[in-house]
Amino acid sequence: MTCHPYSERIARCGGLMKAAGLDVLLLAKPANMAYLTGDGRLCAYAMITKEGKAAMGVPATDVEDVKRLACFDHLAGFEDEVGMIHSIARHFKHFHIQAGTVGLEYTFLTHAMMDMLTHPHGKPEAVVTKDCTPVLSELRIAKEDGEIERIRAAAGVAVAGMAAAVEALKPGLTESQVAAEAEYALRQAGADEFWRTYVCSGPRTNIAHGLPTQRRIREGELVMIDLHPIVNGYSADICRTVCVGRPTTAQEAAYDLYLKAQQATIARIKTGVGMTDLEDTLHGIIREGGHGDHLFGPTMHGVGIEFEEAPLPPGHAFFHGEKAPPPLATNVVIAVGNCGLYTGPWGVRVEDTVAVKPEGPQILTDYVRQLTF
Amino acid sequence: MTCHPYSERIARCGGLMKAAGLDVLLLAKPANMAYLTGDGRLCAYAMITKEGKAAMGVPATDVEDVKRLACFDHLAGFEDEVGMIHSIARHFKHFHIQAGTVGLEYTFLTHAMMDMLTHPHGKPEAVVTKDCTPVLSELRIAKEDGEIERIRAAAGVAVAGMAAAVEALKPGLTESQVAAEAEYALRQAGADEFWRTYVCSGPRTNIAHGLPTQRRIREGELVMIDLHPIVNGYSADICRTVCVGRPTTAQEAAYDLYLKAQQATIARIKTGVGMTDLEDTLHGIIREGGHGDHLFGPTMHGVGIEFEEAPLPPGHAFFHGEKAPPPLATNVVIAVGNCGLYTGPWGVRVEDTVAVKPEGPQILTDYVRQLTF
Repeated sequence: MTCHPYSERIARCGGLMKAAGLDVLLLAKPANMAYLTGDGRLCAYAMITKEGKAAMGVPATDVEDVKRLACFDHLAGFEDEVGMIHSIARHFKHFHIQAGTVGLEYTFLTHAMMDMLTHPHGKPEAVVTKDCTPVLSELRIAKEDGEIERIRAAAGVAVAGMAAAVEALKPGLTESQVAAEAEYALRQAGADEFWRTYVCSGPRTNIAHGLPTQRRIREGELVMIDLHPIVNGYSADICRTVCVGRPTTAQEAAYDLYLKAQQATIARIKTGVGMTDLEDTLHGIIREGGHGDHLFGPTMHGVGIEFEEAPLPPGHAFFHGEKAPPPLATNVVIAVGNCGLYTGPWGVRVEDTVAVKPEGPQILTDYVRQLTF
Repeated sequence: MTCHPYSERIARCGGLMKAAGLDVLLLAKPANMAYLTGDGRLCAYAMITKEGKAAMGVPATDVEDVKRLACFDHLAGFEDEVGMIHSIARHFKHFHIQAGTVGLEYTFLTHAMMDMLTHPHGKPEAVVTKDCTPVLSELRIAKEDGEIERIRAAAGVAVAGMAAAVEALKPGLTESQVAAEAEYALRQAGADEFWRTYVCSGPRTNIAHGLPTQRRIREGELVMIDLHPIVNGYSADICRTVCVGRPTTAQEAAYDLYLKAQQATIARIKTGVGMTDLEDTLHGIIREGGHGDHLFGPTMHGVGIEFEEAPLPPGHAFFHGEKAPPPLATNVVIAVGNCGLYTGPWGVRVEDTVAVKPEGPQILTDYVRQLTF
């Protein structure tokens, strides 16, 4: 089995672990497991040593499937949660780890999951725990060329989903029916899965997380559609706001302002630019346009295996256990337009997935940006 | 605004909190917030006192929407995560809570979220924390008649989704395309959302969590479809295994055995029966049929606002922070057939959502159970 690019990633991970004072990682987040082994699934774990060895524990039913998909030095199947704990114990033993520091995903694990992974029947008593979120974020933040291609493929699928939703839009449809059209098209275009679809209409375009409901769209209302397909293990993020009928002058002006700010922010993207500078650009234009009080939410976030991952913008990063984001490196991928312009009775938002290149931005979700069709 | 049934639920919650030594709850899990206030959303919290008062904190954009949907004594909007912490501080002050015990959802919160909810700028120093999972589970475990009707509606939608998927099944479709048909039908039938759809085929029917992929279904293969729509805030859970073409004798025998075991288990359901007894029934029949070594996974679980909630079966409950499940009360709703019979090259599983009644089981997901069509 060829272990490219996983062995290279694990070697890089080992370097970051040493710098962070971690001897071993015990990962349960599918995105992190997938990055380092080629397979991430529920109810499983990966143990990664700083010397670059990987052991995995998966449900006994899944052993053959994981053998086909993942790169590892050791694989164990377990029958249940008690078996998982014993499997962890055996892997600590296998790697001769009796003391030191194990990195856990503090931003992913619940208290209950943390108790399971550090159960005294699993983890040796002298092994202490520490958050490994910053290590995994740093590891995954700049994408390999192959990853950019996968995100580009996901972006193409996202565009197909958005086109289907926008074409289907008409008064009388429920928000959920619009989501149905988008998701059906995502899967037909090649999505394995998708993160939660947001479709909201009318007054609901003003809320922070507009999950679809049975609300029927009326003539003249705004509709906000936000899609995040997963294709071949990678995600993309696109949002468009569309008016079903004729927008008011105020809606049109707010939309034009938001789009101008979003596009100006994207135009400034290139290797070395700071996220704070980008945020200032977007906020500045919206403030100048008189809508400063209507901004809400983080301006941007990273995109990769997850549709929302590192880098996270200043002010959002701290509570996610992230360090302040460094200047953007080449091949970081971000979604720009995650914040909305929320006026009270309605809101607008336009979001695109963009790769950072030395020469400038490479927009991956290239679907038309217009309020009316 | 009429606060039925929320004020009654909050009163009941107060009684359980006192018994558990909790002075106040600080909830962030949408399912728990929805049960007690009528609204559960992301990036929000509900503070519930043992005297039966409720305060909510939500994104500032969402205040009007929450006013329309929820019952509460106090509502605050916040701008960002720092604002959320200050809002929590103000609500502790509002309720004059300077010491005591606050219940947190240890089985839902990540370490990072826990840090945010208990930030020293939010929680008074003399307030200690304790897991409130068992209180919420006990509170929600037996459903009101109105809740049963909502689960029944979700079950009807689940049946529509299953019918669409089974009718569409043919060789050459990808697993994801089958999921597309199911999910489209779920939304058209009235689902607001759905939990992750599982569609797996051929050798993938043997894995524990068969999320759909681009694998193309071949003539003669088994396909396992597991759906969980959310309708009006409540969920249902249905799984069927279907052969695309002619099954082998071994597949037919295993399917018949599993179905016999699942149906015999359901037949034993009535008020007062123990979950261990039910599990023994299912396991016993499968063992007698010679497939004892092929059983994997928890036999059953509760269904309600979440498609997987309390009661959880023995051996699965501990790590979810649950107490051993008591005998089933009237109006507990469970999904039976959550475990699979996994032979190695393929697996079979049939799962239904069932309400517990004094006179016996009330099957809510009544879609035909057969291997071939």
